[in-house]
Amino acid sequence: MSDSFQQQPLVYAFGHGRADGTSAMKDILGGKGAGLAEMTNLGIAVPPGFTIAATLCHTYLETRSFPSRLRREVEAALQRVEAETGKEFGGEEHPLLVSVRSGAAVSMPGMMDTILNLGMNDVTVEGLARRSGNPSFAWDCYRRFVAMYSAVVLDLPKAPFDELADAALLAHGAASPIELPAAALKALVARFKSHATEATGTPFPDDPMEQLWGAIAAVFESWNTRRAIDYRRMHEIPDSLGTAVNIVAMVYGNLGETSGTGVAFTRNPATGARELYGEFLPNAQGEDVVSGARTPEPIANLKDHLPGAYHELDRMARTLERHFRDVQDMEFTIEDGTLYMLQTRRAQRTGQAAFRVACEMVAEKLISEEEAVARIPPQALEQLLHPMIDPGASLDLIASGLPASPGAASGAVVFDADVAEQRARSGESVILVRRETSPEDFHGMVAARAILTARGGMTSHAAVVARGMGKPCIVGASLDVDEAQQQIRVGDRSVAEGEWITLDGTSGKIYLGQAKLLVPEMDEHYHQLMGWADRIRPMRVRVNADTPADAHRGRDFGAEGIGLCRTEHMFFEGDRLTAVREMILATRDEERQRALERLLPMQRGDFEAIFRAMEGFPVTIRLLDPPLHEFLPKDAEEIEALAAELGRDAGEIRDVVAGLHEQNPMLGLRGCRLGIIHPEITRMQARAIFEAACTVAARKGRVQPEVMLPLVASVTEFRRQALVVREVAEEVFRERQLTVPYLLGTMIELPRAALTADEIAREAQFFSFGTNDLTQTTWGLSRDDSSRFLPHYLETGIIDQDPFQSLDVAGVGRLVRMAAEAGRATRADLKLGICGEHGGDPASIDFCESVRMNYVSCSPYRVPIARLAAAQAALANRGTVIRTRATV
Amino acid sequence: MSDSFQQQPLVYAFGHGRADGTSAMKDILGGKGAGLAEMTNLGIAVPPGFTIAATLCHTYLETRSFPSRLRREVEAALQRVEAETGKEFGGEEHPLLVSVRSGAAVSMPGMMDTILNLGMNDVTVEGLARRSGNPSFAWDCYRRFVAMYSAVVLDLPKAPFDELADAALLAHGAASPIELPAAALKALVARFKSHATEATGTPFPDDPMEQLWGAIAAVFESWNTRRAIDYRRMHEIPDSLGTAVNIVAMVYGNLGETSGTGVAFTRNPATGARELYGEFLPNAQGEDVVSGARTPEPIANLKDHLPGAYHELDRMARTLERHFRDVQDMEFTIEDGTLYMLQTRRAQRTGQAAFRVACEMVAEKLISEEEAVARIPPQALEQLLHPMIDPGASLDLIASGLPASPGAASGAVVFDADVAEQRARSGESVILVRRETSPEDFHGMVAARAILTARGGMTSHAAVVARGMGKPCIVGASLDVDEAQQQIRVGDRSVAEGEWITLDGTSGKIYLGQAKLLVPEMDEHYHQLMGWADRIRPMRVRVNADTPADAHRGRDFGAEGIGLCRTEHMFFEGDRLTAVREMILATRDEERQRALERLLPMQRGDFEAIFRAMEGFPVTIRLLDPPLHEFLPKDAEEIEALAAELGRDAGEIRDVVAGLHEQNPMLGLRGCRLGIIHPEITRMQARAIFEAACTVAARKGRVQPEVMLPLVASVTEFRRQALVVREVAEEVFRERQLTVPYLLGTMIELPRAALTADEIAREAQFFSFGTNDLTQTTWGLSRDDSSRFLPHYLETGIIDQDPFQSLDVAGVGRLVRMAAEAGRATRADLKLGICGEHGGDPASIDFCESVRMNYVSCSPYRVPIARLAAAQAALANRGTVIRTRATV
Repeated sequence: MSDSFQQQPLVYAFGHGRADGTSAMKDILGGKGAGLAEMTNLGIAVPPGFTIAATLCHTYLETRSFPSRLRREVEAALQRVEAETGKEFGGEEHPLLVSVRSGAAVSMPGMMDTILNLGMNDVTVEGLARRSGNPSFAWDCYRRFVAMYSAVVLDLPKAPFDELADAALLAHGAASPIELPAAALKALVARFKSHATEATGTPFPDDPMEQLWGAIAAVFESWNTRRAIDYRRMHEIPDSLGTAVNIVAMVYGNLGETSGTGVAFTRNPATGARELYGEFLPNAQGEDVVSGARTPEPIANLKDHLPGAYHELDRMARTLERHFRDVQDMEFTIEDGTLYMLQTRRAQRTGQAAFRVACEMVAEKLISEEEAVARIPPQALEQLLHPMIDPGASLDLIASGLPASPGAASGAVVFDADVAEQRARSGESVILVRRETSPEDFHGMVAARAILTARGGMTSHAAVVARGMGKPCIVGASLDVDEAQQQIRVGDRSVAEGEWITLDGTSGKIYLGQAKLLVPEMDEHYHQLMGWADRIRPMRVRVNADTPADAHRGRDFGAEGIGLCRTEHMFFEGDRLTAVREMILATRDEERQRALERLLPMQRGDFEAIFRAMEGFPVTIRLLDPPLHEFLPKDAEEIEALAAELGRDAGEIRDVVAGLHEQNPMLGLRGCRLGIIHPEITRMQARAIFEAACTVAARKGRVQPEVMLPLVASVTEFRRQALVVREVAEEVFRERQLTVPYLLGTMIELPRAALTADEIAREAQFFSFGTNDLTQTTWGLSRDDSSRFLPHYLETGIIDQDPFQSLDVAGVGRLVRMAAEAGRATRADLKLGICGEHGGDPASIDFCESVRMNYVSCSPYRVPIARLAAAQAALANRGTVIRTRATV
Repeated sequence: MSDSFQQQPLVYAFGHGRADGTSAMKDILGGKGAGLAEMTNLGIAVPPGFTIAATLCHTYLETRSFPSRLRREVEAALQRVEAETGKEFGGEEHPLLVSVRSGAAVSMPGMMDTILNLGMNDVTVEGLARRSGNPSFAWDCYRRFVAMYSAVVLDLPKAPFDELADAALLAHGAASPIELPAAALKALVARFKSHATEATGTPFPDDPMEQLWGAIAAVFESWNTRRAIDYRRMHEIPDSLGTAVNIVAMVYGNLGETSGTGVAFTRNPATGARELYGEFLPNAQGEDVVSGARTPEPIANLKDHLPGAYHELDRMARTLERHFRDVQDMEFTIEDGTLYMLQTRRAQRTGQAAFRVACEMVAEKLISEEEAVARIPPQALEQLLHPMIDPGASLDLIASGLPASPGAASGAVVFDADVAEQRARSGESVILVRRETSPEDFHGMVAARAILTARGGMTSHAAVVARGMGKPCIVGASLDVDEAQQQIRVGDRSVAEGEWITLDGTSGKIYLGQAKLLVPEMDEHYHQLMGWADRIRPMRVRVNADTPADAHRGRDFGAEGIGLCRTEHMFFEGDRLTAVREMILATRDEERQRALERLLPMQRGDFEAIFRAMEGFPVTIRLLDPPLHEFLPKDAEEIEALAAELGRDAGEIRDVVAGLHEQNPMLGLRGCRLGIIHPEITRMQARAIFEAACTVAARKGRVQPEVMLPLVASVTEFRRQALVVREVAEEVFRERQLTVPYLLGTMIELPRAALTADEIAREAQFFSFGTNDLTQTTWGLSRDDSSRFLPHYLETGIIDQDPFQSLDVAGVGRLVRMAAEAGRATRADLKLGICGEHGGDPASIDFCESVRMNYVSCSPYRVPIARLAAAQAALANRGTVIRTRATV
């Protein structure tokens, strides 16, 4: 390793149509260096320069010294630049100045350091002034250099320099340093230098070579600044990359009105429209654009101002886009009418632009449909599906939490579900704020624009319900919800009922007041691209839907069936809940039977509507899963009310509730255990399913019911319950004189089911991986209780990501893979799917593709993302398209 | 298979020193048939006969018919018996009678059918009367035959026959049928036959061949009677075995006073003493002994009564014991002074006898030490360690539950821990009865002789604590504990406070009243045999001990270290609990630090005492594991009291308690998660451990601390906590100027830990499998909540055994094996042990041996069982000794 490293060059030159590197060498040259090399090779006007390999960054950071051959290589490269420019570094006559810039393989905009105009001293400034015939320009460059070098290399605070500059502006009534006369600039440089000398206790370096090595070291050092480390952590960029150092001959945008600098995109990054888009600042250097001190002009103005340069820029933009086959984000400088390109890179873009650009580039035959699909980051789709806060809005951030359901919304704060409903009915926008939500809050959640809770994790009740409804939701927020006092408290601030807040469910941020929202639309480009994605992906995408309304919504988003229909959700509504409670509280078999008979037609009706909504696509129905106590009232008041309603003794009901109490309900009497203890419930549910299926089938409707047994730990449990379901199916088919083909399968949501999948597959016709519960049991981690330590785990890097959000491949994934392989070894045509929250997460979908699942299933609003992610996973796993780290 | 079956004989003859079979052919001949064949080959006087292969049993049961060649083979074998006895089956002159008996490969005493004196009819009875010169005898045989055949083959109720017999006895003033004159017996036979004919509607069969085939069919049928099936289920005997049918020439114990029948053991099965032991009934057939109608005499009486037969029996006993190299249980009949052996089999024996016999047989060079060790069933050891109910006691069973901790105890029922303590102090024996126990009941459990709960499973609080103390305990009992009314209710019976009950914690049975108990002792044979076991086993046996007292007890039972010291148990006592609560309730860091500083010397003191008790053996200390809310009071009253004690606001404490509430505490903030959130607790505990270790080591004591991190799910968690522990260790070693070698390892108690064991082993020096929690998470099954369905699962055969009692090899075992292999692949010298409840279960210990664990650890009273089971597992896995199905 170190041997081969010794032999590779440390420095890569470019200039005059010839570069040592190419755009494929990002790991060595960094993104900026690779772009400069590639542009040079393309014959684009790039000032000559050279790049010091990023591979040297860690060597320097470990030893704080440079290998001796680097000095030789840098000096040789510098001589080449001198030859190509006809200038001399540190020269008296025709001095060469350079910029020294960082650039890692992955773009980290603004995170690392840059020094411009390096090579300036009291001798070279005079040469530059003479040669340009513009002393103000020369002294302005010197001023810029001393200020920048002091900040970046000498690590001095900026404020004293700003104060000195402000004093000079004031003295001359100037608005900006470029308005100052040369003498004033000269005096300012002297003041800057003497301040730097005083502050450091060392004379400000005048030797250009000393300046150069100081700047190179500073750029390497900037890899490990706090903000750079944080940025890498946030964007999951490996620390090991390191930054390259780009040293480029200066071209001057500050030579006067025929000069300038700017940034341009080859297409509009907001809309995707095919037009040159960007900003331009006359008589300026790059830092002026970045600092925001002066307001740049739209690029179109350049057409009138310097038409030659504009057309050259437009031509180069086309060249670069054709060459890189993607929208480019370019930096340029015009020196006295001549255009130079300083950087080109892949342009970030909005979701809408991403779709339009991808589709139009296919039409332009620039890229293939597969590439178009591979290029859309799933986040782009999120933007298309949900309102977002106008990026230009100025906001008052008050707290943040877990981004449980994407999109943004504004509304008046309300602490009670009933109030939410009332106010929403009178046309008000409300945001329901609760410590945590429970099924009783459901109507309030329906009424609210968004939901905010102080407790709970990504799979808490609020989160799951909100995602199902496609409403923005933030949970586990860093604030107190004082329901008694009807206010939110954050530190010493508080928000009372009726005050407006804005939630960004995509970022998890909570703002005070009403923010401007951008409402997206799914246009022709969306539909075209999703069509390609659908053709590419072998995995089907289903929806998790418990009601006919959800089922319709899923179909609208392109779902090809239901992967999880949770029958218990049907139990919670209105008089059903009463019947369910009667069933649970029954003391005699006949009583229980009567309650079940009342439930039967209700369930059957739901199933009929769901089958119809699914238009013949498969529908996976999970039999009753949650512990029975979830259906009973908890507090004394509710118990009294129920007792009165049922004409029963409250004490008796209290006893039943107490008797059903469990220490760990997650691990208690639920799932198929319920059906084994109470086979009459299984029988009722099976009858409702098969009667509904027969009714729909009899009217020439296609139906594909898939009956799913939950929480199976051993094949024997499956076998016992399967017997009951099959018996009922045969009974119903006999009664209706009609047979509907159906599948009988199970959730794989316990480690033991995964470990004994070979046995279970002997009986089960499909597996649906319930990765929510499988994550809970594999990690020994209750999602309801994890908020007390999971955030800490994420913050301190104990885990990289919330295992409830993105499938834990090393642990849970290993079980899933084992089960998939063992199951298919037993039964070759075993159908495999996933119905946990992970079914809508792109990284998890990629994993599902890698174990060749037949489908993924997710909440309605995640269906488009799953369709896209499934196609991208297929492309990546096939190796057709290299996965790129794409961001919006 | 069916081809080779066709070629094998169906019938195996024996007689006159020559048998077709041997004792190795139990699968074909059944135990009884194999014994008869082997005895014949040994030259022992066995009446001639033949055995129909058990392999035919299922063929018959499926087809309800016999293969034609069976008829040929049976007729040929019968002719051989006729030739050997000189009698004729159905013959007029010298009739041959036979017995037809069942006999499976595994003994199922009394479970299947037998018919004696078969071949009797109105013709043969006259021949038998003439030939024997004893008409009463002949008619008695006929009477016996008709009664038995009617019951067994014709399936008629016994009562009418008994009534007819009673009437005859009454009429003749006789106490027993053998006192009846021949004429009366003859009349009785006629009445029996006509009743049978009436009841069946078919004449009673007179043809001996018809009788024989009817009897053979009946014996095969008896394999599937309810009681036989239940017996097999209870004793885990496979249904597939089937029974053989043994047809043996009758010899007559009812020929008069020089005849008789009996049962004898080659050694005393209660004490193990080397003496002929048994019972004898003159002038009787075998059924008379079994029916209990007459009281048999001790075998010693035979010495005076028929000395020749006695000495012959004694000689045969020696021969059989030498041949079979084990204690034999023999049936014999003396016909007119001549001894015939009818059966020999391995004798059941008490625990005490098992040890004595094994040791004495080694001394006699009959068996090797390895065989002696392999032969002791672990249940025998249980008997030696715990009092048992006198097998002769007559008992009033009122309910049963899970046998949570073995041994028997009687005492007055008490429903309150305080009352238990008071009454016990005044010398009363009490049994603590609670719906379920909690840490607050601890003093009551200490005071009680035994514990009974209506709720909870084998690893509930009551069960774990009782096993730790070696007290009998039954949990999850089928009764109501009405703590308010102070009574137990079972159906319409009730037991009030103060009434006596007797618990058998070995069987899970609860009896009303006081039963006589047998108190065992561990004698020289126990120590000798356990010494051999210790030499054989490669696995070490450790004890789970949380206190110095437990540690001492473990050492007394032979533990070679502590496998699990739960530090939180130290937290529950007296002023420690107060300090723990202060720590939890601390609002500022200094407050928390102060509370921890108060805890430090207490923990250190405990560790010192434990290290000393362990005399240099390794001590595995688990850092704090349970959720913090377990240490806080729950109800308002207790909270008020605590507030008063600490001078804090009750509302504040209530908030903390509410804030720490968890939905599923099993899966919440506990284990290493606590230490990660509160590293100061880890630091305090580590300091206590290392300071204690240094103190003991400084006084020339050997110490081997093994620090164990609980509930690790990922290697990162381990790494973070390990850093803290190692830092503290180095600090302490520096302060004390002394280094104590220690290991740092982890519990493997979550599926994810097992699945990523390769990574964890990179950091951890040992794994201790926490199979309690691993079972809970692998099955998704809370042990606290499982009592609502696990009993149903066991009863209906959904699971074969409680996975908390015996390790679930297919599921949990698979994870353990994966982790062991992956861990050792990473770190060859990784130490592996088990510290769940399974560490004391023989079947689970066998599994641990098969994955080559270094040790098992269990509660003190299970240590001897683990020592024995580990040796037996080693012998079996090595193949040195074939495992036998041994029972007490």
